[in-house]
Amino acid sequence: MKKLINSPDTVLAESLDGFVAAHGDIVAIGPERKFVRRVHLKPGKVAIVSGGGSGHEPLHAGFVGHGMLDAACPGQVFTSPTPDQMIAAAEAVDTGAGVLFIVKNYEGDVMNFDMAAEMADRNIMKVVTDDDVAVETSTYSTGRRGVAGTLIVEKIVGAAAEEGADLATLKALGDRVNSRTRSMGVALTSCTVPAAGKPTFQLGDDEMEMGVGIHGEPGRRRVKLAPADAIADEMIAAITGDVGPAGDALLLVNGFGGSPAMELYLMYNAARARLEKLGFRIRRSLVGSYVTSLEMAGCSITVSLLDAETIALWDAPVSTAALRWGE
Amino acid sequence: MKKLINSPDTVLAESLDGFVAAHGDIVAIGPERKFVRRVHLKPGKVAIVSGGGSGHEPLHAGFVGHGMLDAACPGQVFTSPTPDQMIAAAEAVDTGAGVLFIVKNYEGDVMNFDMAAEMADRNIMKVVTDDDVAVETSTYSTGRRGVAGTLIVEKIVGAAAEEGADLATLKALGDRVNSRTRSMGVALTSCTVPAAGKPTFQLGDDEMEMGVGIHGEPGRRRVKLAPADAIADEMIAAITGDVGPAGDALLLVNGFGGSPAMELYLMYNAARARLEKLGFRIRRSLVGSYVTSLEMAGCSITVSLLDAETIALWDAPVSTAALRWGE
Repeated sequence: MKKLINSPDTVLAESLDGFVAAHGDIVAIGPERKFVRRVHLKPGKVAIVSGGGSGHEPLHAGFVGHGMLDAACPGQVFTSPTPDQMIAAAEAVDTGAGVLFIVKNYEGDVMNFDMAAEMADRNIMKVVTDDDVAVETSTYSTGRRGVAGTLIVEKIVGAAAEEGADLATLKALGDRVNSRTRSMGVALTSCTVPAAGKPTFQLGDDEMEMGVGIHGEPGRRRVKLAPADAIADEMIAAITGDVGPAGDALLLVNGFGGSPAMELYLMYNAARARLEKLGFRIRRSLVGSYVTSLEMAGCSITVSLLDAETIALWDAPVSTAALRWGE
Repeated sequence: MKKLINSPDTVLAESLDGFVAAHGDIVAIGPERKFVRRVHLKPGKVAIVSGGGSGHEPLHAGFVGHGMLDAACPGQVFTSPTPDQMIAAAEAVDTGAGVLFIVKNYEGDVMNFDMAAEMADRNIMKVVTDDDVAVETSTYSTGRRGVAGTLIVEKIVGAAAEEGADLATLKALGDRVNSRTRSMGVALTSCTVPAAGKPTFQLGDDEMEMGVGIHGEPGRRRVKLAPADAIADEMIAAITGDVGPAGDALLLVNGFGGSPAMELYLMYNAARARLEKLGFRIRRSLVGSYVTSLEMAGCSITVSLLDAETIALWDAPVSTAALRWGE
């Protein structure tokens, strides 16, 4: 295992400490590192709280800040945070208008966020993201997995919360954005969980995992490495066969952590050409490593259908460690 | 070679096309893809032009936009762009106040930018960055290499240009920022140039290259993989032994392309603690993969001494594909 770490036991704590030190104008850390929260809360605003296993940075802590999340709960690597983390986060950032949990669809996360919502005795609603079209159920999920599309839900719902939308409206908006968002991934290499010390899965030198999950879960099938255009063909076919009729769309090409920008932009180019041929109008774009799987090489493609309302919310100012514009 | 590409011959063109399609609000591409330029020029402003071999993305094209570069010339992977690219870029973005070339100190780049400056028959000055303390001369450089500190020079000089500074002032400012900036890198894996098809260098499963260059050039020595704290000890000692007396500083932890955010923030945490112990005050921070070496795992640390003027210029609005704030 080749990593820039001191010990598998301390990697999360040291990384979180670095994160809040580097972005102290935006975020602060809660007691016992249970959550990362905004420095400045907005009284009367619905609080948006997310979280999940670590190893997907910048998701979720990198999206805490004005216009997006109020708090994020980091679990151990690829492990759900615990209900007490979510309760502590909700208590810290709820200014009276209630709390919306945004949860990726994995059994551990959903169970723990549900338990937290029950125990917290506050006004809490929940949006579960399940944008991954690769497989219908997976290692850690019943139903589709929540992957990179989650950041689109977090951005759009976060912007609406900033503008004063109430809890029920935000819940409905989050569900609507999720329902119009589809993703699929491909891995060229495995990742290595620090505590495990060895690769999560084995891939031959000439193989790729088509439809991989963000924890290295199996996808649709393991096949010989193909050219980028052939990979884009399959991913775009799977996504567009499910997302609904062609229209205005956001195209997100997301790196898994080990693939450089040069390859991500090349995949964006291939994906965009295919989508435009099918009649999609790419109105907004995002290319980068935003929902990662440690140092896994590969990427996912996400298409999210947009309308005038969601375009305006996407464009609204955001000031977080990982997404920042329109301040 | 496992990459998301179609062919080594077309990777650069396809990636550039994706880049300008994704960021069409900020950048446009020149004829024959000779350069990437801002969509909106500011008449009367000194034009800031950089460039170099590709494979270091987002450097340099990712820094083209308001508050930073006016144009960037992409060479083939790890190969200097040609003088005709630089001349075409200068002609496209010079609005009458002259052009400042910002050039990383590699023999090919310096020679070609010098040739372009001579041939262009315009008012051109040049800043050469050489922030890498690892070695005094290297495979492709006479004198120290220009590495991640280059982006700090580009940001600060770009901001001053936006505020109306003249060419001689910008040249002096760039030289001053470069003289106060020091970097050092470490590689845990090699990278693979697409046209070569095999790793640039060989590292054992338990080895790292301390002081590596951004093209995989040899550093100070090849040693056994060490804990993050020991790596930070050596890098910070090398940097602070050379940068000058402790003071206000910008700390940049830069990923080489294959190291995830979790590790970069952990290294930031280690570097920051050491610098503070030595009396440095970390006034500004940047953590991410900004000056990469394709998919190489590893990172560099850069310390740049700041004063009131350069802090204000660092904070000034910037709107590029890779750096964006204060719009």
